[in-house]
Amino acid sequence: MKVTALAGGIGGARFLRGVKAALPDADVTVIGNTGDDIILHRLNISPDLDTVMYTLGGGISAERGWGREDETFTVQSELAEYGVGPAWFGLGDRDLATHLVRTEMLAAGFPLSDVTAALCQRWQPGVRLIPMTDDRVETHVVIEDAEGRRAIHFQEWWLRLRAQVPALAIVSVGAAEAKPAPGVLDALAEADVVLLPPSNPVVSIGSILAVPGIRDAVRETKAPVVGVSPIIGGSPVRGMADACLMAIGVETSAGGVGAHYGARRLPDGSPGTGLLDGWLVDLVDADVTIPGVRVAAVPLLMTDLAATVEIVRAALELAGV
Amino acid sequence: MKVTALAGGIGGARFLRGVKAALPDADVTVIGNTGDDIILHRLNISPDLDTVMYTLGGGISAERGWGREDETFTVQSELAEYGVGPAWFGLGDRDLATHLVRTEMLAAGFPLSDVTAALCQRWQPGVRLIPMTDDRVETHVVIEDAEGRRAIHFQEWWLRLRAQVPALAIVSVGAAEAKPAPGVLDALAEADVVLLPPSNPVVSIGSILAVPGIRDAVRETKAPVVGVSPIIGGSPVRGMADACLMAIGVETSAGGVGAHYGARRLPDGSPGTGLLDGWLVDLVDADVTIPGVRVAAVPLLMTDLAATVEIVRAALELAGV
Repeated sequence: MKVTALAGGIGGARFLRGVKAALPDADVTVIGNTGDDIILHRLNISPDLDTVMYTLGGGISAERGWGREDETFTVQSELAEYGVGPAWFGLGDRDLATHLVRTEMLAAGFPLSDVTAALCQRWQPGVRLIPMTDDRVETHVVIEDAEGRRAIHFQEWWLRLRAQVPALAIVSVGAAEAKPAPGVLDALAEADVVLLPPSNPVVSIGSILAVPGIRDAVRETKAPVVGVSPIIGGSPVRGMADACLMAIGVETSAGGVGAHYGARRLPDGSPGTGLLDGWLVDLVDADVTIPGVRVAAVPLLMTDLAATVEIVRAALELAGV
Repeated sequence: MKVTALAGGIGGARFLRGVKAALPDADVTVIGNTGDDIILHRLNISPDLDTVMYTLGGGISAERGWGREDETFTVQSELAEYGVGPAWFGLGDRDLATHLVRTEMLAAGFPLSDVTAALCQRWQPGVRLIPMTDDRVETHVVIEDAEGRRAIHFQEWWLRLRAQVPALAIVSVGAAEAKPAPGVLDALAEADVVLLPPSNPVVSIGSILAVPGIRDAVRETKAPVVGVSPIIGGSPVRGMADACLMAIGVETSAGGVGAHYGARRLPDGSPGTGLLDGWLVDLVDADVTIPGVRVAAVPLLMTDLAATVEIVRAALELAGV
């Protein structure tokens, strides 16, 4: 079975661990978000790709959910001794090697998709991990504070400001000119099932869908498309998705996000404008209805691998595969 | 008193520690070798500048003589896990922060001399440390082995090959087009004494002198110029200077190196073609004579700071300052 999933960082990666466990023989392709990529100290950093790679490859910090296990932060402390920041971005020593290899390969002319494949040679994540695009796309957030109205990098908003300053707009800079990375559209077209994990609907899944061609490919695939709600009972399972949803005028609820993704087909069988055939919500959100979308409710907290496997199985069942 | 010294790495840095201790109130300028600079992983690495900066700033590894005290090599181990080398260049985590800051500042357009001054803001080495040039100069070594005749970076010859493959030639690539960094020529012209520490005469001092204008400035300064032999009884005090001297046809002896530097003035008072007014050798080399050069002999092993201070005092006495 061919499974294609869109994925952001921690939530997506944990869900994918469940996919691998539920379907050990499946051919899984992950289309990873690169909108939160950032260049710091001239290093090309791809946090979401790395989170997926480390999580599935056995290198992730179990406690933090991002970055490497047994990590140290010597380089970052030394940078601080030189007065060089930012302090709000956790730059681990082990992680830094990944950034150095990526940066060097990109500078040598390899596209990010090739670089990611090369890094995965080490990590053997057991999935094919493809960045959404080889072009540079950066999610910026428009804020307004004492310094006036301005756009800052998503990571600065997310990590430094903890998303506490309202986002007036969230913009995928470069997305309009970006092309899907090689393999992305085929993976969607040839899938037996397409999954939208409980990643951030705006800055993770939304960022991937902002690359021209990807949204259409999801809508046009012959495979069923099932999403898993990142919202349980009106709150994000983790992270600060509510601050992102507010910026795009979507209610922070399982029903709100489901409706935002929308139905591929209307109840009468005619084409809809959305993405979903199925929408998996938590038991507390069992009353959610989205016209044209099959909704099922199960416990959605990914408390451990077994619980995550159950969620994946419910999503596959909803997909009818 | 204004002291200007040319310096390579470990030997030069240790000698300079003695200069500071012997002359705590002196205004010391160090013209640092950048010929062994290397770019690895897109990081601009200046080993000799860093060795001087760390040694005088209290950050050097006492055991190794290069790199940082309490150093770890996590990033390098992780690079190796990706199959990325070289393993022969010690890339410490603490040290890496210095390279990151330097690389980022250079990329932002600051010349190396400004970058070095900025790094020294942290280390407070107590001297003014100036790179010999802001231009890129790299020492390459011509070798011939099973793979044929070719030029390799000095660091590869020195560290990977341990200088065991004969150097057919040693070339300062870029030196002919390089200009002395701001302050270099003034520091030589305005000095009360110019010192050539017991650094490698070929790839450290020789590299500095290869930058057009510096050799003439040493020859033309009103100050006495005194060198300290890096060779004791026919052997380098440390390092593999003999392999470098062989490449340029100079005997590995205190007399050989002294004659290679040469006399500024001939015995009859007429101008010579060399650099030295005085040449300090070890007691075992007390019989060295170089026409036109005052030679003095003292114990030259820099076994500790007190011994080094005595060497510096002997050099100053030889200079008559």
